[in-house]
Amino acid sequence: MTSRSEPGRAAIVGTGLIGGSLGLALRARGWTVTGADSDPERAARALQIGALDAVGDDPDAAITFIATPVSATVAQARRALDLLKDTAVVTDVAGVKAGVSGSLHHPRFVGGHPMAGSEQLGLDGADSNLFVGATWVLTPTSSTDATTYATVSQVVSSLGAEVVSLSPEQHDTLVAVVSHVPHLTAATLMNLADAGADKHAALLRLAAGGFRDMTRIAAGHPGIWPDVCAANSDAIVATLDELLGELAAMRERVASGDRAWLLDVLERAAVARRSLPAGAVRPERLAELRVPVPDRLGVLAEITTLAGSLGVNISDLEIAHSAEGERGVLVLVVAADDASVLQEGLADRGYRSTAGGLE
Amino acid sequence: MTSRSEPGRAAIVGTGLIGGSLGLALRARGWTVTGADSDPERAARALQIGALDAVGDDPDAAITFIATPVSATVAQARRALDLLKDTAVVTDVAGVKAGVSGSLHHPRFVGGHPMAGSEQLGLDGADSNLFVGATWVLTPTSSTDATTYATVSQVVSSLGAEVVSLSPEQHDTLVAVVSHVPHLTAATLMNLADAGADKHAALLRLAAGGFRDMTRIAAGHPGIWPDVCAANSDAIVATLDELLGELAAMRERVASGDRAWLLDVLERAAVARRSLPAGAVRPERLAELRVPVPDRLGVLAEITTLAGSLGVNISDLEIAHSAEGERGVLVLVVAADDASVLQEGLADRGYRSTAGGLE
Repeated sequence: MTSRSEPGRAAIVGTGLIGGSLGLALRARGWTVTGADSDPERAARALQIGALDAVGDDPDAAITFIATPVSATVAQARRALDLLKDTAVVTDVAGVKAGVSGSLHHPRFVGGHPMAGSEQLGLDGADSNLFVGATWVLTPTSSTDATTYATVSQVVSSLGAEVVSLSPEQHDTLVAVVSHVPHLTAATLMNLADAGADKHAALLRLAAGGFRDMTRIAAGHPGIWPDVCAANSDAIVATLDELLGELAAMRERVASGDRAWLLDVLERAAVARRSLPAGAVRPERLAELRVPVPDRLGVLAEITTLAGSLGVNISDLEIAHSAEGERGVLVLVVAADDASVLQEGLADRGYRSTAGGLE
Repeated sequence: MTSRSEPGRAAIVGTGLIGGSLGLALRARGWTVTGADSDPERAARALQIGALDAVGDDPDAAITFIATPVSATVAQARRALDLLKDTAVVTDVAGVKAGVSGSLHHPRFVGGHPMAGSEQLGLDGADSNLFVGATWVLTPTSSTDATTYATVSQVVSSLGAEVVSLSPEQHDTLVAVVSHVPHLTAATLMNLADAGADKHAALLRLAAGGFRDMTRIAAGHPGIWPDVCAANSDAIVATLDELLGELAAMRERVASGDRAWLLDVLERAAVARRSLPAGAVRPERLAELRVPVPDRLGVLAEITTLAGSLGVNISDLEIAHSAEGERGVLVLVVAADDASVLQEGLADRGYRSTAGGLE
């Protein structure tokens, strides 16, 4: 399988924490990186810290990352798609995906979201290893060309990230649970404690490590959250409703002294937290699945997001077009232990596949 | 001022994380430590790791720490008070104080709660420096003798802790806000995510550092929580009601797209979290306040918890009895910057005081 992650020319629009880290990571791996920012001083600083080779546009960039705030993502992605050659691909890093993907039906665009870093730090926190071991969600749609997906997947994998493929809507539902509502809850707990501290000066001196851990994310940059809440309001409201229901049940059981119920809830949480994966684990043995597919749009998104929903990580992916042009073969590299799960899932959708081991 | 924290003989009942850490910390400072545990194997292991000089009772111990689960605290404290000499003092480390203090009206007992460590670790996590920089709440009542308070305060200060004096009820209200409800909320968020992961295998792979921070405390030992919830149910229910109200308001504002409200809430939380004290700061300059007081019970608790409620840390404390026996002088050492605040608070309660600088 040839690699599309061979270093070449890359462009970055938006040089904050993620854009700056991308620049450092790509340049460390031999890429030539050109970048721009709506704030010329920030772009100049990115150049200064070695995150960029040059400030400006690069019409020859093979891959462009849009790393602006989400409100500017669609316009900047469209501009890049217009500017670039027909072989170039564009991706973004916005934290909410359905709105961006719904506005950008283009074969050379695939949405993305690296689950790393914190807006709090800005360019000063940029780190060439920010993405090592991090999950990087890609959100292909029926418009996404397989080559676009494979290129972006291979480049971000080469930076150390583990790619998970989800539909834009699935992504938004899941991040409401593991990111947006936890953040809003942390802020609410912090404000409750702060209001209590107004009444009793000693309160915050009693805040030990557990409280500090729990509220740490509330120190993050507040400015991004009105956009996030607006872009993902349905999923956030649904998750807040679930949380409100569970906390109301907790309140009733504390009030009634239901020790067995409380112990059960806390034991389940402890087991779940202890088994939370500490980071992506690279499989020791890989397998290659070859899936004959009709050469039409939508197949790539269907198959990669099926893998995501089965918890199967796609380590590498290529599409081989047949000479006749009507059918191709999608080649997926997955952990050997996951191959049969994915084969069964594919069979349920009507795809036959053959599996082979890899060294 | 003579110090009562001169190393001597100490006893520890219950050799888990806190008891074991106390043994290590006291022995490192020259104390001879005898300890016991309801589980003889755990006591033997505490001896083995150097947390104890001997296993058993020590009727000559000058200070005894009850570090059992809260359900055994009152019985063990009574047993120690019966066993020991009339000059010995007893304290405990239970995480909820009103129940313990309400059952133990004794001049030689003062309740305590070191805000350090996690039950999760048990004796294996014992650390002689566990209390360095930690807040250690003492909860004197009208029964507590000033000498008892001063002795316990000086010993735990000598282990590196910063003493905050609160009434048992104040303590319980405040820890509901900064510890109990955050823990219950972390467990609830973890269970929500775990339920979501049943529906979508990729969910927990999206859990980045913020979610991990927020749910870390949920991995703690679940067994203590039914006791904590029962012992502090009123304060926990009241705080959960506040949290439910704030989260319901958050839900409405997300649903209605009220960006200004959301930004305000998140900005307040960020400011509060960033200014959360990172640990107790030892003041550079100290002042000594001398407060003539009637030599009766209750004065000590009133004055020390007044300091706590004003956010004034008492670094050292001694009571000098007058020859006549009806009045004494309470000598308080506080940060020089705090002296005037405390003097004003004392004046409001009818206590005149004189202040002097200390080297």
